[in-house]
Amino acid sequence: MKHIEGYLRVSLFLSEMGKLSGVFSLRHFLVLSLALNVALISRVVYEGENWREEQIRALMADASEKSAHVSMSSPPPPSPSTPSSMAVTSTEIKDDGERVINLDHGDPTMYERFWQQMGDITTIVISGWQSMSYFSDVKNLCWFLEPEFAKQIIRLHKIVGNAVTDNYYIVVGTGSTQLFQAALYALSPPNASEPMSVVSAAPFYSSYPSVTDFLKSGLYKWAGDANNFNKDGPYIELVTSPNNPDGSIRQPVVNRSGENLVHDFAYYWPQYTPISSPADHDLMLFTVSKATGHAGMRLGWALVKDKEVAKKMTSFIELNTIGVSKDSQQRAAKILQVISDSYEPVGNPKQSGPFFHFSHSMMEERWKALRSAVKQSGLFSLPEFPSSFCNFLGQAFGSQPAFAWLKCEGGIEDCGNFLKRHKILTRNGKHFGASPEYVRVSMLDRDESFNLFTKRLSSLHLSQSKDHEKESP
Amino acid sequence: MKHIEGYLRVSLFLSEMGKLSGVFSLRHFLVLSLALNVALISRVVYEGENWREEQIRALMADASEKSAHVSMSSPPPPSPSTPSSMAVTSTEIKDDGERVINLDHGDPTMYERFWQQMGDITTIVISGWQSMSYFSDVKNLCWFLEPEFAKQIIRLHKIVGNAVTDNYYIVVGTGSTQLFQAALYALSPPNASEPMSVVSAAPFYSSYPSVTDFLKSGLYKWAGDANNFNKDGPYIELVTSPNNPDGSIRQPVVNRSGENLVHDFAYYWPQYTPISSPADHDLMLFTVSKATGHAGMRLGWALVKDKEVAKKMTSFIELNTIGVSKDSQQRAAKILQVISDSYEPVGNPKQSGPFFHFSHSMMEERWKALRSAVKQSGLFSLPEFPSSFCNFLGQAFGSQPAFAWLKCEGGIEDCGNFLKRHKILTRNGKHFGASPEYVRVSMLDRDESFNLFTKRLSSLHLSQSKDHEKESP
Repeated sequence: MKHIEGYLRVSLFLSEMGKLSGVFSLRHFLVLSLALNVALISRVVYEGENWREEQIRALMADASEKSAHVSMSSPPPPSPSTPSSMAVTSTEIKDDGERVINLDHGDPTMYERFWQQMGDITTIVISGWQSMSYFSDVKNLCWFLEPEFAKQIIRLHKIVGNAVTDNYYIVVGTGSTQLFQAALYALSPPNASEPMSVVSAAPFYSSYPSVTDFLKSGLYKWAGDANNFNKDGPYIELVTSPNNPDGSIRQPVVNRSGENLVHDFAYYWPQYTPISSPADHDLMLFTVSKATGHAGMRLGWALVKDKEVAKKMTSFIELNTIGVSKDSQQRAAKILQVISDSYEPVGNPKQSGPFFHFSHSMMEERWKALRSAVKQSGLFSLPEFPSSFCNFLGQAFGSQPAFAWLKCEGGIEDCGNFLKRHKILTRNGKHFGASPEYVRVSMLDRDESFNLFTKRLSSLHLSQSKDHEKESP
Repeated sequence: MKHIEGYLRVSLFLSEMGKLSGVFSLRHFLVLSLALNVALISRVVYEGENWREEQIRALMADASEKSAHVSMSSPPPPSPSTPSSMAVTSTEIKDDGERVINLDHGDPTMYERFWQQMGDITTIVISGWQSMSYFSDVKNLCWFLEPEFAKQIIRLHKIVGNAVTDNYYIVVGTGSTQLFQAALYALSPPNASEPMSVVSAAPFYSSYPSVTDFLKSGLYKWAGDANNFNKDGPYIELVTSPNNPDGSIRQPVVNRSGENLVHDFAYYWPQYTPISSPADHDLMLFTVSKATGHAGMRLGWALVKDKEVAKKMTSFIELNTIGVSKDSQQRAAKILQVISDSYEPVGNPKQSGPFFHFSHSMMEERWKALRSAVKQSGLFSLPEFPSSFCNFLGQAFGSQPAFAWLKCEGGIEDCGNFLKRHKILTRNGKHFGASPEYVRVSMLDRDESFNLFTKRLSSLHLSQSKDHEKESP
């Protein structure tokens, strides 16, 4: 039964996709449909009646898991024999209110389902004697950048149209967090009398202050909300767009002489926001974690206009980690290649599904479910996003960010604490330079977590908030 | 012909190995011999007469390669269709003196040959949907440490006997360079009035000063040669043993109150030095790069006695790179497992060759060749190492370090410059807090480079040194 339901949902998804087809032809859907049919049939054949049982067992295991680090608990990754289910609607889920739902981190496990369904097409094989040297390409300024990964980065940006790559240097990093530090190092003069100020408009990504300041560097120093910044002299402004945590589209706010901009484009991909034009700023950061969901690879890349800045960033990574895992670069090259192949299928019989269409549709569904839960509860509010045209998907839509910037209404002063009492872990607004009435909620967790979250959220009403107020001193 | 020569060399190697067999039985050699036979036969079958041609082509390509970064040039990694040859003796090589031999970095490409010969036994396969989450084990203090990698680290230390692991925390890092910084961060008090002094006895690893100081941290600061350190208060002493660059066995030299020791055990493996006892210091660093030769993985681990120090090191890596590549950890787990399996073969039909016996023998051969070249030339000298008993190999030998600490004699003041004129790139002694009469030379490059190096070195005589002196102002 479940398999047939799943199949119907996929067919429905495909027919919906057909309507919004811009760069995407019916032939793509036919091939995808066939691929998914094969995947579903083999699931029936190989797993038969055990499938539902396995799903329940996975949920049970999840529920009973007691994490040593409460702030870091997450469901165990699926094993090949227990793939995630197709989307389960929240009405099908029983919630006894006891299971801890951890949406504090932006762990992108939502994407596992897509890659599972793609089967072996993204599998890589690495022999024991491969990738032993420190060096990837001694002729490249960034000598530890794997040439195939560089090629696939450029190809994907050209297909998606979210960034210009011509005349840019690519610097690879152990996630965009390392590249962010490399950028601070590269943009700060080595012999200044005091550290360079680093600012970002609130609400800003909660890690910026701690990552900037944890080593008490004499080169750079966190200087807080860009909206309140009024110091003379050179500074670095971090422009995250769409923004983490609130999903807003951002421009620099300080706009003074001595400006050094770092554009964090972790979320400038079509599943999260309309791609309006190819970005062409001086220093742009991207990360595999949020683009394809492969956070465990710890990979990011920077597109850098100025050669000296690219050299200094490379130098940072050389001093910090002597390069970046080749294994992950090779794996990422394969993942990006498969995504690009699915949009450039000419003469390629091995194409996979259309990744951005699938993930865009998932995010759309999740945001609908969240807004519906918020409405049903009456205790919360969410930002609204204006619709704009996406050149890549060929349609207009409003942003559907990787995080929900949820506000507690009804006089709840600490939204994070309130949700924690209901065993929903989120990140408190105060970590983002904002009010504790806000929390950031990951929208990228596995289906089971997300569905349980919307179900529980929809059941929270004013009476519970009042009970809570009475109980708290 | 070449194939038969190769086969004979392997057989000779095996029979030599038989003599020094301590923990190692004849049965191991038989299985290894069979495995190598299969490897050699398939090489003949699949590559036939093209093999010699390919080898020459690779050398030619190498020679003509013009590196953009002179200091980073290295031979291109072999492709599956052009495996490295079996050892080529220096007498077989023609040296026109024009090819640049870059032994500046300790790039451990020497090990490729071993892993190529092991065939598919260390191959790993990673599916597109695996290792997507940031988290590896939420119950572990180091939540981004892959459990299988942790298990294989402990197993290997127990087999080799080079470090105690009971009651230690394991922290994984993007190479031991990142772990070194994590250690400085963890051992420095967060609110001290001035940065903690970091010292190491000269000659010390050339990266220590720059890695300590590049961010101008307010937490810690390079304070130079430990032998000259006389400041009061807490300090961090780096004890590298065997030492990089000179291979000496080291103990702390400051020995004052407020001592914080970091033991860098990158080279405490039986191919480089006798394993006298399991090390049990407070904070010990290891790296895959020099243990197995997989520098491209960018992986290291720390064994840490104190829980709070391990927590702070984990926190450093969380802030710096949000964890460590899972792909590389999985690959490293496989490599370590295969090595351990080769020493614990009971009931394991898939065992590979005896890695440490092979690499020990290679290093022994290389040091013999280097000492012979130095003798023939008359222009250089090398440190001598006392023989001591290795519990792992069951025999006594003198250290055969990963680097040669070469001194120019005969009045040559700048050894690095002298060798550079003869197109041999090394690292100047002054980078190690020592005299420029010394250079550090990597002993871990591919056979072709190493053999060319010893050939060229043996041909340098006093007359050339005099010519050089005349030419230079």
